[in-house]
Amino acid sequence: LGLTVALDAMGGDHGPRVVVPAALAALEGPDEIELVLVGDAPALEAEIAARGGAPARLRIHHASQQVAMNELPSQALRGKRDSSMRLAIDLVKQGEAGACVSAGNTGALMAMARFSLKTLPGIDRPAIISALPSVDGHTHMLDLGANAESTPRHLFEFAVMGSVLAHAVDNVERPRVGLLNIGQEEIKGNERVREAARLLEASGLNYVGFIEGDGIYCADVDVVVCDGFVGNIALKASEGVAHMIGEYLAREFRRNLLTRCAGVVALPVLRALRRRIDPRQYNGATLLGLRGIVIKSHGSADEVAFHRAIRQAVAEIRKNVPGRISERLQGLLTDREAG
Amino acid sequence: LGLTVALDAMGGDHGPRVVVPAALAALEGPDEIELVLVGDAPALEAEIAARGGAPARLRIHHASQQVAMNELPSQALRGKRDSSMRLAIDLVKQGEAGACVSAGNTGALMAMARFSLKTLPGIDRPAIISALPSVDGHTHMLDLGANAESTPRHLFEFAVMGSVLAHAVDNVERPRVGLLNIGQEEIKGNERVREAARLLEASGLNYVGFIEGDGIYCADVDVVVCDGFVGNIALKASEGVAHMIGEYLAREFRRNLLTRCAGVVALPVLRALRRRIDPRQYNGATLLGLRGIVIKSHGSADEVAFHRAIRQAVAEIRKNVPGRISERLQGLLTDREAG
Repeated sequence: LGLTVALDAMGGDHGPRVVVPAALAALEGPDEIELVLVGDAPALEAEIAARGGAPARLRIHHASQQVAMNELPSQALRGKRDSSMRLAIDLVKQGEAGACVSAGNTGALMAMARFSLKTLPGIDRPAIISALPSVDGHTHMLDLGANAESTPRHLFEFAVMGSVLAHAVDNVERPRVGLLNIGQEEIKGNERVREAARLLEASGLNYVGFIEGDGIYCADVDVVVCDGFVGNIALKASEGVAHMIGEYLAREFRRNLLTRCAGVVALPVLRALRRRIDPRQYNGATLLGLRGIVIKSHGSADEVAFHRAIRQAVAEIRKNVPGRISERLQGLLTDREAG
Repeated sequence: LGLTVALDAMGGDHGPRVVVPAALAALEGPDEIELVLVGDAPALEAEIAARGGAPARLRIHHASQQVAMNELPSQALRGKRDSSMRLAIDLVKQGEAGACVSAGNTGALMAMARFSLKTLPGIDRPAIISALPSVDGHTHMLDLGANAESTPRHLFEFAVMGSVLAHAVDNVERPRVGLLNIGQEEIKGNERVREAARLLEASGLNYVGFIEGDGIYCADVDVVVCDGFVGNIALKASEGVAHMIGEYLAREFRRNLLTRCAGVVALPVLRALRRRIDPRQYNGATLLGLRGIVIKSHGSADEVAFHRAIRQAVAEIRKNVPGRISERLQGLLTDREAG
């Protein structure tokens, strides 16, 4: 199989205009990876030709359809069986690729991936996980929106999956797992979260207790677990604040000649900040819990960001993340029976 | 009654050391307000004396107990009937003050306020609301954590209350109300939010639909409605991001001589940013839905922040926010019966 990644070349806001150059950039990296561009062959050939022709280790897999960004997942699942998204997933299912990456419609990607790949044994609900910057490093947070509601058992599964991913990707021996709640005291929060806490305390995971919203960015934990409704809103609220601060700084530095000069002087620091909190550096969320690796890129991802998502896919192939989740889950369940 | 505000002088991380100077500062403002410091009389007298003695319009109301920051609300309710927090609330109930302000334990404050003041007719659950900065102004968001779970009917009540507050405080004629969800399409989110949307569409409020997490900071809406679990986490995640960015900027500007110079040059802009997103400027959350005005200050509030909370109390007395909520709710219910 090697390090082969299938790319949904038609997905996202920009399609081949971003996916093709990102693929070419990824092929120049140190990894001996192979890429499959899945999508409209003539369009892809034209895009590649315009950029100097196809290198070795890049091939095209034609798809006659594409999934629209606002298409209902159920419709895409029924009607888009020859779409670039679906065929990229199917290459993973058929063992022709070790992972796939799409910047398309998240709901459709999740629906197709669940249908085609199925969930891992012991996993009821897949979840979306992504790394987020923290003061001194990063944390992994899930679920970021795959599920609008979660039971305590689902939150427990998320914790197992997140722990395995953090271990595999960051080489953290026993990732610290925190459960997002509205207070650190045991009495706070709702019954669902409290019950999940009881499952985690008995789990053998390195569960460190409840964390509050600001704990996401504190680096006191490696994995933050929450339901998809809360996780998605916390993520987007965070992006909103970062954007507001960026807008505000840009506006203030443009205010007059003096502040413009200050802005020029401060530019290296502001650039460093931008790099640090740039969502592009964190692009590449994983649909975790499936029998295969599926990476979701931001729809608006540019070449740099999409390239980052490809590297995420490669890292997860190397570490066999799905296989490790299965093992870990089996281990925890066996421990519990033994104990 | 006039503009009399009762202050829980023992609450918060700093007690009289912050509340007394904040009270003295508030008395110097243009409003002809009167303040009642509720707490340990000898301690308060000493604090006032150390600051040059008591001005007119400031009096002390002795309380023999205080509520601890980590005390269980139920315990505080039963065992702290002569606490500064409880007596400050009771002054509102007895009509001796138009509002009270406390920086103490939020859970205990809510429990005591509900018990002593009761909720307004038609309101099942009070909620915590606060203003948050947005790119060009601010939004009001509720619930920020009074309730760990909310029914669609509760979300509807929050929308009515938030709308009245935005109208009263900001003089917005028909405040735009958005419902926090994980997607703008109608099919997304959970059933609770979709049902709340149906109630709001039929309500006569200026309901503008679903907004996502980043919409909190966009100024496209005046009021953001969500359940307390989501609201509290989104708020604290936002504070966490802002703090992380601040830390990062401070660290980068200290990196070397060049960046230190850049930092000095950029200082006015950074100070302007700090003022803009300073939580102290937004201190003073309202416990909305009660038969009286109760303002919650951050526990860590300093003098500036606590003063801001006092001004919030005065603004709500002037506008008779609880009375207006009752009227509005009656109006909406009558409209619905008529329609």
